[in-house]
Amino acid sequence: MKKYLIPDEWRIIEDNFDAENHLASESIFSLGNGKMGQRANFEESYSGPSLQGNYVAGVYYPDKTRVGWWKNGYPEYFAKVLNAPNWVGIDVLIDGEKLDLYTCKVDRFLRVLNMREGSLTREFQVTLPSGQCLRARILRFMSMIHTETALIRYEIEPINFSGNIEYHPYIDGDVKNEDANYDEQFWNIHQVGSKQNYGYVFAETKKTSFYCGFGMKSQLSINGENSSLLPKVVSSEKKIAHHYTFELGKGQVAIIDKYVAVTSSLNHEISDLEKATETAVNAVYEIGFDQMYLQHKKKWAEKWAHSDIVIKGDVKAQQAIRFNIFQLNQTYTGEDERLNVGPKGFTGEKYGGTTYWDTEAYCIPFFLMTSPSQVTRQLLMYRYKHLSKAIENAEKLGFTKGAALYPMVTANGEECHNEWEITFEEIHRNGAIAFAIHNYLRHTGDYSYLFDYGIEVLVAIARFWSQRTTFSEDKGKYVILGVTGPNEYENNVNNNWYTNKLAQWCLKYAIECLDLLKLEAKNKFDALVIKLCLDVALELKHWQDVVENIYLPYNEKLEVIMQQDGFMDKEQMLASELPQSERPINQCWSWDRILRSNFIKQADTLQGIYLFEEEFSIDEIKRNFNFYEPRTVHESSLSPCIHAVLANKIGNVEKAYEMYMRTSRLDLDDYNSEVHEGLHITSMAGTWMSIVEGFGGKRVYDEKLYLSPSIPAAWDMYAFKITFKGVDLVVSVNQKTVSVYSQSDAPFEVCLYGQKYEIAPQSTVEVTR
Amino acid sequence: MKKYLIPDEWRIIEDNFDAENHLASESIFSLGNGKMGQRANFEESYSGPSLQGNYVAGVYYPDKTRVGWWKNGYPEYFAKVLNAPNWVGIDVLIDGEKLDLYTCKVDRFLRVLNMREGSLTREFQVTLPSGQCLRARILRFMSMIHTETALIRYEIEPINFSGNIEYHPYIDGDVKNEDANYDEQFWNIHQVGSKQNYGYVFAETKKTSFYCGFGMKSQLSINGENSSLLPKVVSSEKKIAHHYTFELGKGQVAIIDKYVAVTSSLNHEISDLEKATETAVNAVYEIGFDQMYLQHKKKWAEKWAHSDIVIKGDVKAQQAIRFNIFQLNQTYTGEDERLNVGPKGFTGEKYGGTTYWDTEAYCIPFFLMTSPSQVTRQLLMYRYKHLSKAIENAEKLGFTKGAALYPMVTANGEECHNEWEITFEEIHRNGAIAFAIHNYLRHTGDYSYLFDYGIEVLVAIARFWSQRTTFSEDKGKYVILGVTGPNEYENNVNNNWYTNKLAQWCLKYAIECLDLLKLEAKNKFDALVIKLCLDVALELKHWQDVVENIYLPYNEKLEVIMQQDGFMDKEQMLASELPQSERPINQCWSWDRILRSNFIKQADTLQGIYLFEEEFSIDEIKRNFNFYEPRTVHESSLSPCIHAVLANKIGNVEKAYEMYMRTSRLDLDDYNSEVHEGLHITSMAGTWMSIVEGFGGKRVYDEKLYLSPSIPAAWDMYAFKITFKGVDLVVSVNQKTVSVYSQSDAPFEVCLYGQKYEIAPQSTVEVTR
Repeated sequence: MKKYLIPDEWRIIEDNFDAENHLASESIFSLGNGKMGQRANFEESYSGPSLQGNYVAGVYYPDKTRVGWWKNGYPEYFAKVLNAPNWVGIDVLIDGEKLDLYTCKVDRFLRVLNMREGSLTREFQVTLPSGQCLRARILRFMSMIHTETALIRYEIEPINFSGNIEYHPYIDGDVKNEDANYDEQFWNIHQVGSKQNYGYVFAETKKTSFYCGFGMKSQLSINGENSSLLPKVVSSEKKIAHHYTFELGKGQVAIIDKYVAVTSSLNHEISDLEKATETAVNAVYEIGFDQMYLQHKKKWAEKWAHSDIVIKGDVKAQQAIRFNIFQLNQTYTGEDERLNVGPKGFTGEKYGGTTYWDTEAYCIPFFLMTSPSQVTRQLLMYRYKHLSKAIENAEKLGFTKGAALYPMVTANGEECHNEWEITFEEIHRNGAIAFAIHNYLRHTGDYSYLFDYGIEVLVAIARFWSQRTTFSEDKGKYVILGVTGPNEYENNVNNNWYTNKLAQWCLKYAIECLDLLKLEAKNKFDALVIKLCLDVALELKHWQDVVENIYLPYNEKLEVIMQQDGFMDKEQMLASELPQSERPINQCWSWDRILRSNFIKQADTLQGIYLFEEEFSIDEIKRNFNFYEPRTVHESSLSPCIHAVLANKIGNVEKAYEMYMRTSRLDLDDYNSEVHEGLHITSMAGTWMSIVEGFGGKRVYDEKLYLSPSIPAAWDMYAFKITFKGVDLVVSVNQKTVSVYSQSDAPFEVCLYGQKYEIAPQSTVEVTR
Repeated sequence: MKKYLIPDEWRIIEDNFDAENHLASESIFSLGNGKMGQRANFEESYSGPSLQGNYVAGVYYPDKTRVGWWKNGYPEYFAKVLNAPNWVGIDVLIDGEKLDLYTCKVDRFLRVLNMREGSLTREFQVTLPSGQCLRARILRFMSMIHTETALIRYEIEPINFSGNIEYHPYIDGDVKNEDANYDEQFWNIHQVGSKQNYGYVFAETKKTSFYCGFGMKSQLSINGENSSLLPKVVSSEKKIAHHYTFELGKGQVAIIDKYVAVTSSLNHEISDLEKATETAVNAVYEIGFDQMYLQHKKKWAEKWAHSDIVIKGDVKAQQAIRFNIFQLNQTYTGEDERLNVGPKGFTGEKYGGTTYWDTEAYCIPFFLMTSPSQVTRQLLMYRYKHLSKAIENAEKLGFTKGAALYPMVTANGEECHNEWEITFEEIHRNGAIAFAIHNYLRHTGDYSYLFDYGIEVLVAIARFWSQRTTFSEDKGKYVILGVTGPNEYENNVNNNWYTNKLAQWCLKYAIECLDLLKLEAKNKFDALVIKLCLDVALELKHWQDVVENIYLPYNEKLEVIMQQDGFMDKEQMLASELPQSERPINQCWSWDRILRSNFIKQADTLQGIYLFEEEFSIDEIKRNFNFYEPRTVHESSLSPCIHAVLANKIGNVEKAYEMYMRTSRLDLDDYNSEVHEGLHITSMAGTWMSIVEGFGGKRVYDEKLYLSPSIPAAWDMYAFKITFKGVDLVVSVNQKTVSVYSQSDAPFEVCLYGQKYEIAPQSTVEVTR
């Protein structure tokens, strides 16, 4: 844990330069606009520890798999999040010496992530080894309107000298991935060139042949006057730089504005890429820096209008929730069905592929309520488009007849993880993907997705579960052997309750959806039967048999669900009994010790209770929560939020607050000492859930909205904006009342604390808590 | 499966050259003498697929570990079996063209491994692309007397031409490991040089700094006359070659004898290595080829006198058992306590380290009865010397107070395996190491080993088990969670019966041995208590508690032991129901499917019954055998032999014969399609067990010898030689009688079919079967 950032409602602030924190800050101050993103690497040279990161959405590299011991079924290739050519760089030279904060004396430093405006600024004053002192101010943003462009304004002022200054804005294709199995470079650089003050690099990824264009144009101004100075072009095999050299007097100000475009063959024909890149740069260059920034801020204001959460009386809580929402909105905008929400978004290389079950289990609830339904539909289409690869994947593992196993990690639909206990066994992901369809339908009522696409996914997943369950003569029940649940501190267990429960639900839901399709669109049903060779009588009968006879481990004595077979054979210890020096256990204990212990990495049984909450009484939830939470070490970023939601459900607001703070400030306070690797983007949606579904008690049953807000003692009030079936709502909660404002032109029905209310158009209902 | 070798009682014969078989033959025709060994690479150039392999015993390389995902507790380095400089090479040039069997037309080819004499010969006649036809004959052996030397005789005769011939005997240090994690070369070559007809290369392993010397001297003779021709020296940075160039007429014969010495810093001071190498070469050069070969053959005759097994009426069975015994004797001679028996011996790089539990569980029974007791004692000393590293290893995993976990794989005492389910969980290896001490004592009565060394090993192992067992409140018993048994097709299971049973035995045996030590050598006991900080009252009380209350899974309904918790939840299938096209399952099925199935890789529960046979009635053994064997796919080389022993025990001689043939011809017939990687050296001891303990029914109880021989219907007779407490015995079995001959000068007591007999000195007892 590390706390060096200044609390603020709308900004993340670092007010002191410490190279020790720089890697963490590079993650935290990351920018993105859904189409590209980057770590907060400095523009000028920096010789200290840094993880260079420029990422282009949808561009990945299939690195040859590397394992100690091969297991049959492992994928040959493993997708890598790709560090792209560096376009952020602007070297600054003072009398021939490179400005480098690692070697200067930093007199003053302020780095600010302005979340309201979507920008990153730095201001600093430094003394160079030569004794020369200068002040700098840098502003950077990635346009939310012109999403192929980003702008940087770099300003310096000599404080105690006059001298020769050079600005070298550049694009450098000579980049490496930190995460590379064989230390190769993943890009071929095809063109490096320059026309007047336009410079460019065109690059192609090896193997996957994604073409990307990187163009830049710069404008120098001195003391507010545009300079007509044309740069000297310096190019090498992989790098283009424009050198601006000029004299600057003490107290004078030199600004360089760098306009950048990043294009890719995902969005352009390769033959058009050259032109598209130049056009994009020219367009924003014409608009100009100030106007571009205005447009960008306006777009962010719109984003906030739909997704902001206000918390009063707790600035750290306020800052944290906005940080989470901000990063989510930077990562995914729902405009492209080929994209998804990587666990690290545009903030680091870790975790390889871009798509985990995090998307369905965590991100979809967020996007469902803060964006038009189209955004979530894109995420569902993403999986639909990968269905044939999921079927191939299952075939590789010995499944037949169109059963699908979606990959644990993927960039293109192919599995790209290679730990057998995860790749082959953490199969509950298949359930999350089915559940997301249900979740989408109950929030949007858009059954066209189900009938045209989703039903195929559901059938393929049902087929998987029907084959993956086997009948135990011994138990007289269907069992699921050899799985890893969400709690990855248990591997290759039998009858993980969460997995069994989800399998049962998937089979039941697939039957229901097929029935519905038959009823509502018989012709589509008939076509589907033919397309999928569905033996309705035989297959569905077997599914139903599994639904009715699946084994769900339960401990009669304790009256709690059992996480898996044999869980009570373990030494029963509580996380509170662990000495602080041994936490996190994943850094302090050997793997076998973790596996043998009863400690739970993240919600597992409770994740299932979260999904199927309506099946449990409050007492049942309480008993299970009080059994499992104290055994949970929350060493996955996905853990605290689920606990926050359930803690609220059982009225334990104090615990919910603890969990909320942990999930929301996970990265800002670096709970797990790993923020330098990137942010936990997908778990940020969990943070949002812990407010809206946690404190807010938001639920949807039968396509209707329910709320039962609580409020932590520390807060004066909080308010969140949600969209439900196209209606924008504002829910405000203080220590005494709850009010719900509806922007709808029609009456809107909401259930508050179990009581139905009809909110008049553009009106508010207020009730006492 | 591949059957291209000719059956023969004493020889392995390949009578046709097929490049497809060459990699397999390189393994099968390997030579070794305990101090070094090599694959049967051709002396002359060979451009076809080949795995170069020259190995120096005890010389390994710690290659940096490479895994997909790191787990806490993994070792940083992984020992590699090291391919050493190539000293076998003799290039042969005919009118400037290199002889290469891959590019010639091979008219006739015969490769013979003469197991009686310990030599490898080749005879061939080839037609070169030029049309020149020649005959060659090569003899090679690695001296069993002068164990730092090896000799090669290479003879050629032009059949249809006269021409210019060149012999280039060489030593080449420019070698690579196929098994290298980062494709590095592992040797630094320090010296390459020549003095008259003596050439040498001195090399040092990176990191481990083993120094090795490779020296050679050659003698050319033409038509039986020694030639005085001095070679031209051709050297490069890593290679020394001596070029002999001469004219040879049609029908004339040119022979080159190459005398080689391989020395290492394991056996010489580094400063003496140069001299030692030259001295060794000169010594054997002086003795001369023929005399050297005579000595060598004599030594092999002695080896066979102690370890041969004769089988009449079944030449394939005869050939196979001799092949197994031959390879074992080539691999380990027991002269050096720093050495062990690698699973591939000197025949390949696979499996990294040199020491597995194979040594204790399989090889020790062989060496105990075919060699002086000192040989086995060396193997036990090896583990004693590694005790402190085993304690360190356990500490890394969180164990305390001198508990030891011996590594799964090692070359120097450090763990060098990195699959968590093996490294951390296949802990039964610790039991095999303790059991080997017991086995040694009951065969030899040499309690000095126990009192001076073994007791420390036993205490450290007992401490491990006492900590690794945990008390299950649920079961009211001690349990062992998260293990992998010998059956590696089950990972991370709870209460593997074999492991639990062995743990119980280890604890019981440690208590017994401590009691014995106290009784027999009170002063040593007292010293031990201090040295090990042994809390006799407290620790032993806990051990006893675990012994009495450990959980041993058992199925009351089936009346069979349960391999592990939940085994009956699996779909119960028999190996006979598996289609041939899906076998071996480890090549045809994905790993998760293997794990979920009930198929057993190798004896697991039955391995335990084998160890503790006296605790079970014949009926119990039958029931368990008949339950587990049909579920066993025998995809480990270590499996069939245990089944052969138990099948005999329960009177199923037919099954025993099937298992015997499978284990004994595993490599010769390439059952698992992997012999090209090297031979299964350690399982060869299992082959020996399947005759002596299987058909022979040899047992030792209370330090007394028991025999109850059976004989397969296909055999006329078989006979084996064993040594028991220093007495050499010959056991001969035919379809009607069993006879035991004792070479002892004193009467010898043996129990035949449960009946005691006293054999008079140098006499035979014969009984009717």
